[in-house]
Amino acid sequence: MAAQKPSIPKGTRDFTPVEMARRNYIFDTIRAVFILHGYQPIETPAMENLSTLMGKYGEEGDKLLFRILNSGDYLKGVKGSGLRAQGSEHRTQGSEHRAQGSEWAVGSGQLAESGIRDLSAFTQHISEKGLRYDLTVPLARFVVQHQHNLNFPFKRFQIQPVWRADRPQKGRYREFFQCDVDVIGSDSLLYEIEQIQIVDEIFTRLDLPVTIRINNRKILYGISEAIGAADKLTDITIAMDKIDKIGVEKVIEELTQRGLTDDAITKLQPILTLDGKIKEKKAFLEELFNSSDTGKKGLDELCHVLKYLKSLDVRNKFEFDVRLARGLSYYTGTIIEVMARDVPMGSLCGGGRYDDLTGIFGLPGLSGVGISFGADRIYDVLLSQDLFPDAILSTTQLLLVNFGEEEERFSMQLLMKARKAGIPAEIYPEPVKLKKQLDYANRKQIPYVALAGKEEIESGMITLKNMKTGEQQSVSASRITEYIQ
Amino acid sequence: MAAQKPSIPKGTRDFTPVEMARRNYIFDTIRAVFILHGYQPIETPAMENLSTLMGKYGEEGDKLLFRILNSGDYLKGVKGSGLRAQGSEHRTQGSEHRAQGSEWAVGSGQLAESGIRDLSAFTQHISEKGLRYDLTVPLARFVVQHQHNLNFPFKRFQIQPVWRADRPQKGRYREFFQCDVDVIGSDSLLYEIEQIQIVDEIFTRLDLPVTIRINNRKILYGISEAIGAADKLTDITIAMDKIDKIGVEKVIEELTQRGLTDDAITKLQPILTLDGKIKEKKAFLEELFNSSDTGKKGLDELCHVLKYLKSLDVRNKFEFDVRLARGLSYYTGTIIEVMARDVPMGSLCGGGRYDDLTGIFGLPGLSGVGISFGADRIYDVLLSQDLFPDAILSTTQLLLVNFGEEEERFSMQLLMKARKAGIPAEIYPEPVKLKKQLDYANRKQIPYVALAGKEEIESGMITLKNMKTGEQQSVSASRITEYIQ
Repeated sequence: MAAQKPSIPKGTRDFTPVEMARRNYIFDTIRAVFILHGYQPIETPAMENLSTLMGKYGEEGDKLLFRILNSGDYLKGVKGSGLRAQGSEHRTQGSEHRAQGSEWAVGSGQLAESGIRDLSAFTQHISEKGLRYDLTVPLARFVVQHQHNLNFPFKRFQIQPVWRADRPQKGRYREFFQCDVDVIGSDSLLYEIEQIQIVDEIFTRLDLPVTIRINNRKILYGISEAIGAADKLTDITIAMDKIDKIGVEKVIEELTQRGLTDDAITKLQPILTLDGKIKEKKAFLEELFNSSDTGKKGLDELCHVLKYLKSLDVRNKFEFDVRLARGLSYYTGTIIEVMARDVPMGSLCGGGRYDDLTGIFGLPGLSGVGISFGADRIYDVLLSQDLFPDAILSTTQLLLVNFGEEEERFSMQLLMKARKAGIPAEIYPEPVKLKKQLDYANRKQIPYVALAGKEEIESGMITLKNMKTGEQQSVSASRITEYIQ
Repeated sequence: MAAQKPSIPKGTRDFTPVEMARRNYIFDTIRAVFILHGYQPIETPAMENLSTLMGKYGEEGDKLLFRILNSGDYLKGVKGSGLRAQGSEHRTQGSEHRAQGSEWAVGSGQLAESGIRDLSAFTQHISEKGLRYDLTVPLARFVVQHQHNLNFPFKRFQIQPVWRADRPQKGRYREFFQCDVDVIGSDSLLYEIEQIQIVDEIFTRLDLPVTIRINNRKILYGISEAIGAADKLTDITIAMDKIDKIGVEKVIEELTQRGLTDDAITKLQPILTLDGKIKEKKAFLEELFNSSDTGKKGLDELCHVLKYLKSLDVRNKFEFDVRLARGLSYYTGTIIEVMARDVPMGSLCGGGRYDDLTGIFGLPGLSGVGISFGADRIYDVLLSQDLFPDAILSTTQLLLVNFGEEEERFSMQLLMKARKAGIPAEIYPEPVKLKKQLDYANRKQIPYVALAGKEEIESGMITLKNMKTGEQQSVSASRITEYIQ
């Protein structure tokens, strides 16, 4: 067979050891902080039933699902407009991948017309599973399915890849990781506070200063109510979500097109440009919400969260931003979004309170709050800011040079000793030229190389080379591990 | 919308926090030992091009691949026997998922006959990607694709799920994890030895005694040569692989059916029942291999490995088993297989030397050796033998009881203190009945609960309850973290 030139599907990536080290540095940091706050890990299958996934991400989302072709005879039973399965006539031999036991065929001329009408039905027939699109719907499904074995409030985190058939572009992949932390089964504001503490702790540990923007969906509802456009809440939310990208004027243009009255726009305008201290914003909104109980409640919740945060030694900047909207429809209370302070990059993480995520799977009335961390963007920011610690890149600490059979036996004993002391170590597999062995150590960023030739073995004093400084030292064989530690 | 009863695809699993803790205990142990021996992690995408996967796992394997339906208009351009794409006639409106820009239709009556002949072509057309079936083929693809950036010998490990459309049954899943460790680019026997040391170290750390069975494919070739059936090597390998399951007699029956001569069978019989000390087996084979250089070489390799292992303080039992064959066709030298010593269960891990894994992707002549650990079987054995340490199950160490707004503020400060000291801790989110809060702690296996009510706050002495013993103690607020540590 001719050799294939290997490649991977567009939008996907291999992770080399260096990339793994960096990615794991992020995951390990995030995971440790989640655990510190009492969250427990779960994982769900890569494949979910399409009935679980479909209709949860909007029309656009449905199109971006990766679908799995049913295994085995996936065309069995295909019928209806334009397609029908036939029994055993026309069975074909000689194809390894042929359908077994039934055949895919099309009945008659008239079906050329109707066949196409059923692409959707056809697709449903041949594909019943899809790849996970996010970690939120699987969480809802998980909570409902395992509800009798879970301890509520259920605090879980989940770090897994998700797949989206998006057009790949710089920084946007078809396979990427999400790191989600959620609590389900309590409407206590303590959890919003806790999760903002988590954000604060994670970015402090990563040494990356961020700004945490906070708002509340009830405030947005209150605003739409107060300007006389309560029925336009979704339009207002979607438009406001773009304010950073397209600016206030374009947002107003869009809202006019979507049917907001001039009166409503006039009232909305000062809100879209609302700035200043929290106190001032609060005073402004308090007056606005004379006519909106929901708005008032949202403002109360927000102030409670902000006040608590102030007392809790949060190290990153947090601010109330009434323009923060977040696109997803399921949020009902607090919403937050986090940006790197000095790096122009989209949000690094975001989330909020939702009140009925599990309702669609038959368990209504469970409030939850969660935040999703975008590992790829965090990776890119840390890399651009040179914030990955050097230490994460070194793996093997000691390479033993191979001088031949006899010396090898001696070095193998040293090797065992190093490993027993917990030092990642290896021996070069063959007695090739020293330069080649040292090159190997350099390329793998191994900091120490031990040379145990005939002389060294006799004297019991090994030559230990520091690969960074180039320095060589004579160290007693029995003390090599101490020396490296 | 009516509530959906949630479920997951058959053969897949959710991992609850308890299962995650157990699984991560295995992964963490395996990973730490891999790193200790100088192996570095990589990861590859869940999806590979089908051109990468097809033809690598035999006919059976091809059928077990999960295929991804192409995204977008997957029927575009479908034509040929029975299928053709049409331009713009018959465009259908009103279906969200309709194909865009072309239509799927079937031409004429005669195609009912020819349509089926092209199921294989049709499948290829609508699906170009598949889910990873193992970690070996992706490794080969990775090595060839990144060859200019890798440091050879390339020592990598990989812990990721794989997917197979196998019939699900007890202990066999459609999504399961493999933990593979391989080195590519050296034929040094030191790597066989190193990987057996890895096996020994991992099962020692897991406290699970195992037997490591070792053989060499060259010995099997030598045997087939010596009995005059060199052309039947594959048949002999496949049949011998079943010896543990079906017994010697059935193996001989199978080989007779596959055309082995009576003479060959007569010569093979004593080999199939060969037992005794390594020395005796060696003597027997040495004589047998007078006529087989390959056999001799295999025996030399094997003896070198065994001799080295003896000098290296291997704690688990290892044995030379001439009947060990391992099914996979790509092995060319050392093969090993590991079983739990006292538990009837299939092999927990296995692997061996292969000489041309990357050839199919255009990089011939790279020898490698690797071992794959079956996480699920190891999980089942550890569970059945009660070998999971209790400590892995506890996550949160301290729960602060919530007595109301004022006390909560005080407890939140304690909570921060505990977390700063590295103690995973949380507060109950609402001031509900104490019993409910203690129940929460119990179900989550939280060992300590701190009660800071009005009195405690005034006196500065917190009540700390040990949830295992039920004991309560009065501890100074400032010393709670020390106490728990």
